[in-house]
Amino acid sequence: MSRILSVTTTDVRFPTSLDLDGSDAVNVDPDYSAAYVDIATDDGEHGYGLVFTCGRGNELVTAGMDSYGELLVGRDTDELVNNLGDASRRLVHDSQLRWLGPEKGVSHMACGGLVNALWDIRARRENKPLWLLLSEMPVEEIVSAVDFTHIGNALTPADATDILQRGQAGKQERISELREHGYPAYTTTPGWLGYSDEKLVRLSREAVADGFGMIKLKVAGSIEDDRRRLRLAREAVGPDVRIAIDANQRWEEQEAIDWVNQLQDFAPYWIEEPTSTDDILAHAAIRKAVHPIKVATGEAVQSRIIFKQLLQAGAIDILQIDSTRVAGVNENIANLLLAARFDTPVCPHAGGVGLCELVQHFSFFDYAAISGSMDDRVIEFVDHLHEHFAEPAIVTNGRYQAPKRAGVGAEMLGQSTAHWTFPSGAGWQALNAH
Amino acid sequence: MSRILSVTTTDVRFPTSLDLDGSDAVNVDPDYSAAYVDIATDDGEHGYGLVFTCGRGNELVTAGMDSYGELLVGRDTDELVNNLGDASRRLVHDSQLRWLGPEKGVSHMACGGLVNALWDIRARRENKPLWLLLSEMPVEEIVSAVDFTHIGNALTPADATDILQRGQAGKQERISELREHGYPAYTTTPGWLGYSDEKLVRLSREAVADGFGMIKLKVAGSIEDDRRRLRLAREAVGPDVRIAIDANQRWEEQEAIDWVNQLQDFAPYWIEEPTSTDDILAHAAIRKAVHPIKVATGEAVQSRIIFKQLLQAGAIDILQIDSTRVAGVNENIANLLLAARFDTPVCPHAGGVGLCELVQHFSFFDYAAISGSMDDRVIEFVDHLHEHFAEPAIVTNGRYQAPKRAGVGAEMLGQSTAHWTFPSGAGWQALNAH
Repeated sequence: MSRILSVTTTDVRFPTSLDLDGSDAVNVDPDYSAAYVDIATDDGEHGYGLVFTCGRGNELVTAGMDSYGELLVGRDTDELVNNLGDASRRLVHDSQLRWLGPEKGVSHMACGGLVNALWDIRARRENKPLWLLLSEMPVEEIVSAVDFTHIGNALTPADATDILQRGQAGKQERISELREHGYPAYTTTPGWLGYSDEKLVRLSREAVADGFGMIKLKVAGSIEDDRRRLRLAREAVGPDVRIAIDANQRWEEQEAIDWVNQLQDFAPYWIEEPTSTDDILAHAAIRKAVHPIKVATGEAVQSRIIFKQLLQAGAIDILQIDSTRVAGVNENIANLLLAARFDTPVCPHAGGVGLCELVQHFSFFDYAAISGSMDDRVIEFVDHLHEHFAEPAIVTNGRYQAPKRAGVGAEMLGQSTAHWTFPSGAGWQALNAH
Repeated sequence: MSRILSVTTTDVRFPTSLDLDGSDAVNVDPDYSAAYVDIATDDGEHGYGLVFTCGRGNELVTAGMDSYGELLVGRDTDELVNNLGDASRRLVHDSQLRWLGPEKGVSHMACGGLVNALWDIRARRENKPLWLLLSEMPVEEIVSAVDFTHIGNALTPADATDILQRGQAGKQERISELREHGYPAYTTTPGWLGYSDEKLVRLSREAVADGFGMIKLKVAGSIEDDRRRLRLAREAVGPDVRIAIDANQRWEEQEAIDWVNQLQDFAPYWIEEPTSTDDILAHAAIRKAVHPIKVATGEAVQSRIIFKQLLQAGAIDILQIDSTRVAGVNENIANLLLAARFDTPVCPHAGGVGLCELVQHFSFFDYAAISGSMDDRVIEFVDHLHEHFAEPAIVTNGRYQAPKRAGVGAEMLGQSTAHWTFPSGAGWQALNAH
């Protein structure tokens, strides 16, 4: 019998604040970081997971994974990875730890890191990348992985079964198509708030030349800057390439409405995070008032319970899952199924550290076995920090290529995690010596 | 000039799970715990704060206070405690740490612990208990302490100023009244789910004899048990004492409606936490369907942004603030003002470790300077663990007596924190030796 031998966490940080990569109206100086975890079994298996953070506080997520990890060490590996629904519930609903959320913030993200690492073991055992594992998994097993707690008024196990059974028709053809042609991406690379106009224009043109059908700009610094930058970007990409804009929760409800409507001239496709993502009612009001600009949110949505309400209230046009905000693969299956139930496209958030590598699997699975559609669906892509991963995300001609390596995509290179371990790694020691 | 010298945290836990004190349908075996913090200045001042948790995970909140504490050490004490609005915003909106929430879960509670400790220094400097400090503070300073971010569509600084200015009339009389007669309490002591019928009846009778006008019962184990226990409690207290019931988020929306309506025979006063407190829309639906039973929630409400929506959506009759869930005194002032704006009574959650000692100050302040009313307003009281505090909460004849000692109420006895430090304290060492 295999048992969980150890749960080992590492605080990995990259000094991205030095270049203002990733700068926006709220996250002004992020050091993109990964709370990284390696779950080892006494048979020598390993499963890897990570949680993205912005630097300070990464140590709290690693501490969270250490705390929840104590619930796993010594347990039967087979029991955990063959019943990942139970495994997730055991962590998420622990009778004492749940007070820390419930199901939100540091504790919830920590659960997600561990849950993903358990899925990593499972996917490696079956020698499949996560998206293929999920796409080929029996419907009943997918349904058993979902925690329906507090979403029963929008999605029942019977609803989920129906959605997944409809997704079986044509599945093999879609899997072949994904392997051959990949899945559409959009890029945020041109649009960081810290970039000069010249850099914005140059990178926007490059994005179009690279085959992207959509780019994204950070907004909400000042309305004059936003109008100028959006005009420059629109001139650079032409009328047919979509431009999404992202306010990173900067505004109050009325402020969002007034500001966004002053940008209508440049026909932005969606406004992302116009206000607090905890504010379902404000999102609903903003969506009504900024039509035809669509409303998107999700990278900071704490759980399926908030996504459910955003859908019930008609508050969003686009649901943006994030691979490391919620409690891992299981909760993102719930989010995909909720989106399908409300006929809402999923356009995942990515970037940061490893988010592209992880989240792509969900869109591939969604196309293969849930929505069966790529209409108005794109995965975010930001071209940095991929070189630290065992299988970097690959985007060519504006499309993510299907991951091939077994696992969930979280495995990092040992030399990278060692070099950028905070604060003891050689990379940080060298920076601190300056 | 005084500077912050150190932020020292202690993981204090009490083995309450041995007695099933505090047991309910979700929290089946809590070890009531306090993530305790002592902020010291280089002038020898001390401010104390704490965050209540249920045991496992208490170490994550202490770690959180350590992390946020780094933002305070070395700073000018006067600048912090004379502008507590800025002090709070500096912690809550730190550009890197905010990713961990934003404004929810472990990171937010950790901010709250530190913010309360800073208020403790301020209150000690003015030699006043927190409730009196707040009640006598100039309106402009109270308003400047509030973070209006993402509540601007419900409460503006002008609204807050109006509410507080109306609260000035008769304030001195109400302060005198509070000092003389205190503030009404209700007790949860009889109603824990782990207690026998005999104990429930005995403690219910004792509660009435002790002068309480309301008791609370935990429900949602089984409907048969709930009907039997509620019948016994109603027989024990008679028709005129209110009985609140509390499901601790156990139900789905429709399940809550069906279950609660089967308890109408026994005329419960409110149903507390019928479902996830993150679920604003479900609370609104439940409230409509269980009338005349009132709906109450708040001990798990992560921030003012959720409280605002619960009020906007007409989802609650009773707003239950908690002293250590949100970002401290500042955010609870926001919550009190939101409640006043929507003419909704505040009935604080208490119990746990130190929650009675801390939260009472807000109801006293609310009566003195905000709502000016005690109608349908009661503070929860649970009679355990008070002996560990420098100034234990005192309830006589069913009323909280006005706290007299300078500070926010969080200071614990050194012998208590040392004895119950987890896992190294003598109390835990002795238990582990068995």
